[in-house]
Amino acid sequence: MPVNLTAPLAADLHPVAGLSIGTAMAGIRKANRRDVVVFQLAEGSAVAGVFTQNRFCAAPVQVCREHLTANVGIRALVVNTGNANAGTGDDGLVRARTTCIALAQQLDLAPEQVLPFSTGVIMEVLPVDRLIAGLPAALADAAPDRWLEAAQGIMTTDTLPKAASRQFDIEGHRVTVTGIAKGAGMIRPNMATMLGFVATDAVIDAGLLQTLVREAADASFNRITIDGDTSTNDSFVLMATQQAGHAPIRVLDSSAGRALRDAVFAVSEQLAQAIVRDGEGATKFITVQVDGGRSVEECRLAAYAIAHSPLVKTAFFASDPNLGRILAAVGYAGIGDLDPALIELHLDDVQVVRKGGRHPDYREADGQRVMKQAEITVRVGLGRGGAQATVWTCDLSHDYVSINADYRS
Amino acid sequence: MPVNLTAPLAADLHPVAGLSIGTAMAGIRKANRRDVVVFQLAEGSAVAGVFTQNRFCAAPVQVCREHLTANVGIRALVVNTGNANAGTGDDGLVRARTTCIALAQQLDLAPEQVLPFSTGVIMEVLPVDRLIAGLPAALADAAPDRWLEAAQGIMTTDTLPKAASRQFDIEGHRVTVTGIAKGAGMIRPNMATMLGFVATDAVIDAGLLQTLVREAADASFNRITIDGDTSTNDSFVLMATQQAGHAPIRVLDSSAGRALRDAVFAVSEQLAQAIVRDGEGATKFITVQVDGGRSVEECRLAAYAIAHSPLVKTAFFASDPNLGRILAAVGYAGIGDLDPALIELHLDDVQVVRKGGRHPDYREADGQRVMKQAEITVRVGLGRGGAQATVWTCDLSHDYVSINADYRS
Repeated sequence: MPVNLTAPLAADLHPVAGLSIGTAMAGIRKANRRDVVVFQLAEGSAVAGVFTQNRFCAAPVQVCREHLTANVGIRALVVNTGNANAGTGDDGLVRARTTCIALAQQLDLAPEQVLPFSTGVIMEVLPVDRLIAGLPAALADAAPDRWLEAAQGIMTTDTLPKAASRQFDIEGHRVTVTGIAKGAGMIRPNMATMLGFVATDAVIDAGLLQTLVREAADASFNRITIDGDTSTNDSFVLMATQQAGHAPIRVLDSSAGRALRDAVFAVSEQLAQAIVRDGEGATKFITVQVDGGRSVEECRLAAYAIAHSPLVKTAFFASDPNLGRILAAVGYAGIGDLDPALIELHLDDVQVVRKGGRHPDYREADGQRVMKQAEITVRVGLGRGGAQATVWTCDLSHDYVSINADYRS
Repeated sequence: MPVNLTAPLAADLHPVAGLSIGTAMAGIRKANRRDVVVFQLAEGSAVAGVFTQNRFCAAPVQVCREHLTANVGIRALVVNTGNANAGTGDDGLVRARTTCIALAQQLDLAPEQVLPFSTGVIMEVLPVDRLIAGLPAALADAAPDRWLEAAQGIMTTDTLPKAASRQFDIEGHRVTVTGIAKGAGMIRPNMATMLGFVATDAVIDAGLLQTLVREAADASFNRITIDGDTSTNDSFVLMATQQAGHAPIRVLDSSAGRALRDAVFAVSEQLAQAIVRDGEGATKFITVQVDGGRSVEECRLAAYAIAHSPLVKTAFFASDPNLGRILAAVGYAGIGDLDPALIELHLDDVQVVRKGGRHPDYREADGQRVMKQAEITVRVGLGRGGAQATVWTCDLSHDYVSINADYRS
């Protein structure tokens, strides 16, 4: 059961001028489900992306990097679910390229103008014939208002589609930012989530867009974890169709740049949090905030140690304030000269630990009250500096085990 | 259900000359269970230990380090289960010291001659009055043949006591090595396991013993993981009572030194593997072997990434050869310049991956056959050097979640 997450309404997802989306049921893995999505971008659009740091990155990720480097103007994205085309060696690369060639032919583009994306089971052969056979239907379906169908078309173990949308004005011109993402396991993004696609009609060049997509990933998808497993296919793409009519954004630190950044950050954060809320087996949404560090990096180490600890996560599932497990995780996070006597721990408004030991006023009933909530903030003070970091995660439940034990069946 | 593990027989656990053991039921956390163990060592015994690298180390670990540094001759160890005395600040230190003072008085020793150990729930106040009240019964119970009771007296979520024993000869003198350990969660030892005590009557000085205990830990307890959580209380102690009658061992690289090392390694490895076999919720015992690395360190990174991955562990639980998850874990292990095209993967005798992709002869039925076994070896070849490393772990089952969701109830 997702935590405080509902399916988006199609009416809330504003179309982005210059972008059309079509979906199809190609039978990649299962029949009668939307499993192919094609994005088409107007000529002159800018596209930027960040991709997984997993060395075993999937074939489509390798092809995406090549095609973005080729710099001939990306005009289409093709996404399939049901098969990750990862761990597939040279044959996987051929299949990803074949997909791009097939779509390019139908759209009268060069293959380097197409970006491919795959998600699903690893180390199985991508049924590229079925995927290509599904492309005409996806193209026939193309329209600007298909965001909800696209969100459905990229789901794997997600229980709900994930989409977000914002609008704001630049010089009297209405600007739209709309995006979709998917989870829901193998989630510990390292540069990007499993799959995230955000589009805007803002006028901004590709270089600045690359800066923005990286900043947005760091503020959103790079702050979440479900099971600590960094996927082979993580990809987060930001597209700008240049059609909003305002003067081009030349620097992000301008009034228009900040407005765009705020909207892209808001959409990205909402999508990233939606992935955690719909994390496999999740029953709680947990914000882990570590402050008082000497660097952001050490705060992140501590926050991820807490967020990855199976013992901490099962305690949250059980609503059991067995909070020493949080201290233990901070202790092994890898901060070599950490002084335990300076550690403070709050659970929402309840102070649990002061100076490295149980706070004298702490009562288990207070911890229990917070642990029973669906949304909990864990706040750890390291007491050694001014840096801070935040990570979002979920608990570890029986359903996580069931979902992942049965994933392929 | 432990994996291929049965309770040791008292008759198989050879007493160590110069060492007596007594246990008591002190009601630390629960009534009517053995929860205090006292080891008494003959004068002149050497004691060496390795302890957790967790910065939030427990009060008794801090006191152990102080007392070993004081170097006045350790003569007794006192162990309690039911309470870890960790995350307890200055008050916890006072309670650990008070325990040592009480036992020292009863044995006419200095407090620095006593080492304290605690295991159990973190961040709760150690009931030192009940612990001290239990000491006379433990002393009255003292005898050389109480190893099995001692193994029972240090259990927490362990379902079976863990003990091992070996005998060998040096210059016609029979030498004994016997030890006990406990698990079974918060297990990703970093220098030692949760608690391990191994004793020998061999004649060897404390300096050499310290070298030996570190080598033994690296070859055993430092190669296991259950949930990746490094405990606050990990302690592994090696005691030598000097009573076997042979000429003192001056170097480990001698015939007598090698014989002792082999026996200590064998006992330590058996205990370490027993902890994994009895890991919380374990249904499978998994050996992860990574070879072809440029360094042992990078082989360990890859082996631990596999052994810690919740997705890999749930796949083993389900006997589902979803083996791309293993490749993904290798890919995010942190080997920056890893070439995926060189990776090989075997599951026991079945080759699954060749040159980074699915082996053309691999059949899922063969993977399935191996996955159904209770003992499985995962062998990954990195193809870039001659180093190798092995890690032992277990699967992640529903019972792990249940055990840790209900731990304190």
